[in-house]
Amino acid sequence: MSMAEQKKILCVGLVCLDIINVVDKYPEEDSDSRCLSQRWQRGGNASNSCTVLSLLGAPCAFMGSLAAGLTADFILEDFQVFCIDVSLVSKHAQCVPPASVVISNISTGSRTILHMNRNLPDVTLEDFSKVNLRQFKWMHWEGRNAEEQVKMIQQVEQYNSTLPQQERITVSVEIEKTREPLYQLFPYGDVVFVSKDVARHFGYESAEAAVRGFYSRVKKGAILICAWAEKGADALGPDGVHVHSDAFPPKQLVDTLGAGDTFNAGVIFMLSNGNTLC
Amino acid sequence: MSMAEQKKILCVGLVCLDIINVVDKYPEEDSDSRCLSQRWQRGGNASNSCTVLSLLGAPCAFMGSLAAGLTADFILEDFQVFCIDVSLVSKHAQCVPPASVVISNISTGSRTILHMNRNLPDVTLEDFSKVNLRQFKWMHWEGRNAEEQVKMIQQVEQYNSTLPQQERITVSVEIEKTREPLYQLFPYGDVVFVSKDVARHFGYESAEAAVRGFYSRVKKGAILICAWAEKGADALGPDGVHVHSDAFPPKQLVDTLGAGDTFNAGVIFMLSNGNTLC
Repeated sequence: MSMAEQKKILCVGLVCLDIINVVDKYPEEDSDSRCLSQRWQRGGNASNSCTVLSLLGAPCAFMGSLAAGLTADFILEDFQVFCIDVSLVSKHAQCVPPASVVISNISTGSRTILHMNRNLPDVTLEDFSKVNLRQFKWMHWEGRNAEEQVKMIQQVEQYNSTLPQQERITVSVEIEKTREPLYQLFPYGDVVFVSKDVARHFGYESAEAAVRGFYSRVKKGAILICAWAEKGADALGPDGVHVHSDAFPPKQLVDTLGAGDTFNAGVIFMLSNGNTLC
Repeated sequence: MSMAEQKKILCVGLVCLDIINVVDKYPEEDSDSRCLSQRWQRGGNASNSCTVLSLLGAPCAFMGSLAAGLTADFILEDFQVFCIDVSLVSKHAQCVPPASVVISNISTGSRTILHMNRNLPDVTLEDFSKVNLRQFKWMHWEGRNAEEQVKMIQQVEQYNSTLPQQERITVSVEIEKTREPLYQLFPYGDVVFVSKDVARHFGYESAEAAVRGFYSRVKKGAILICAWAEKGADALGPDGVHVHSDAFPPKQLVDTLGAGDTFNAGVIFMLSNGNTLC
């Protein structure tokens, strides 16, 4: 095993607690009802992608902030169950541990999400400056505080510029939410994931239209990827290489929670092991 | 201060974690939305009544079961904040800490409750047999496992029969849910709280009709009380004494969570301090 293979994948972004309430009928307003089951899960895009990377066998680390208190222990324990390095997680004192409530309707497959009002600081350039970059081969950013994230990526670029090609850190970014500041991340990824939501917000009606339309925004040599739920995913690579993959639907749809995060992790895992788009 | 005054009030019943999500619009199915705020609260009828009793200055204890784990610490800490004796709380090992999710809509005042699927054992006669009855002047049962609760109350009756009137424990029961087995509790309380829900289930259209209609079910000398939300409450005591109280609405309705538990605690507090209905 070479040095590069032993190096880790870092995912920078959110972790939160998802309280998933399984129902067979969406509750009417002002009613009392009983859920079929309830489960507590570690959630958050970057956190979920770490789980899948770890299950695929890739050493990985999560970087993000966590409210100190009740749920922090639950979340940290779960990271450990999945052998995810949490040494870059910063704890912030906070009285009330926030959670996202998910109502998962097994009759329709719908998932209704009530997001917490998250008042935790995002990872800053200052936090990131303390990271020993040598231990990583890939860094993935879930688009959040984009202005600060650009500065972190520039720090990686500077680090990379001192190294031979094979020792450099590959950078990926995810642009999932339709928020203007996130679009400044397009030129900063070697691999850029853009969501169906963002694509449709820009008027694209397919994954192929999206990757072709957005490609002018990414940097030279980058791979741009757009997943489109049950219609599969499209990617556009350097020299105009276009790839489409159909979706592989499971026999039975349980719920779609974390589907995008799983897709991202799968792509990162394959590309980080030397595989290519085609 | 006499011995009787130093004795405690025991409330037997449920404690759970309520995760209250405040919204200004009830979420549509399959949507992603953000709540205005989220708070975690200790809930459960008997648990809530203890809070109010303690705030009113009555020494009190809670008896019920608790899932070991994450939320147990939160709940026990909160009991302690309110100086509620938890020495009779039994912890049960369980992997997932269950919670009730409440969606509180500030635009309409509605509260939609998704109850957890609670698989904790209720308090049994065996548990109750270990209680030192001498420390209590009042015991309140939230109707749950009624058959077992009847046996506990019979134990108190037997204890009482050996004592002079002024040293006896007063027993109150709450019949809130429309479940047939709970109705066997009617003849076991010195004070019986019956809910508007149960009253309407029996076809009574007012609190007065309910207390008059149900009075034949209670034991000789008992007080039967029925609260009817914004219409106030009615009570029927020994010798046909009927009392009505109007509601005292707050200037602004925040939410109605725990309103009934607060009412019960208020009544128990006053009666346990020697006050009468009239």
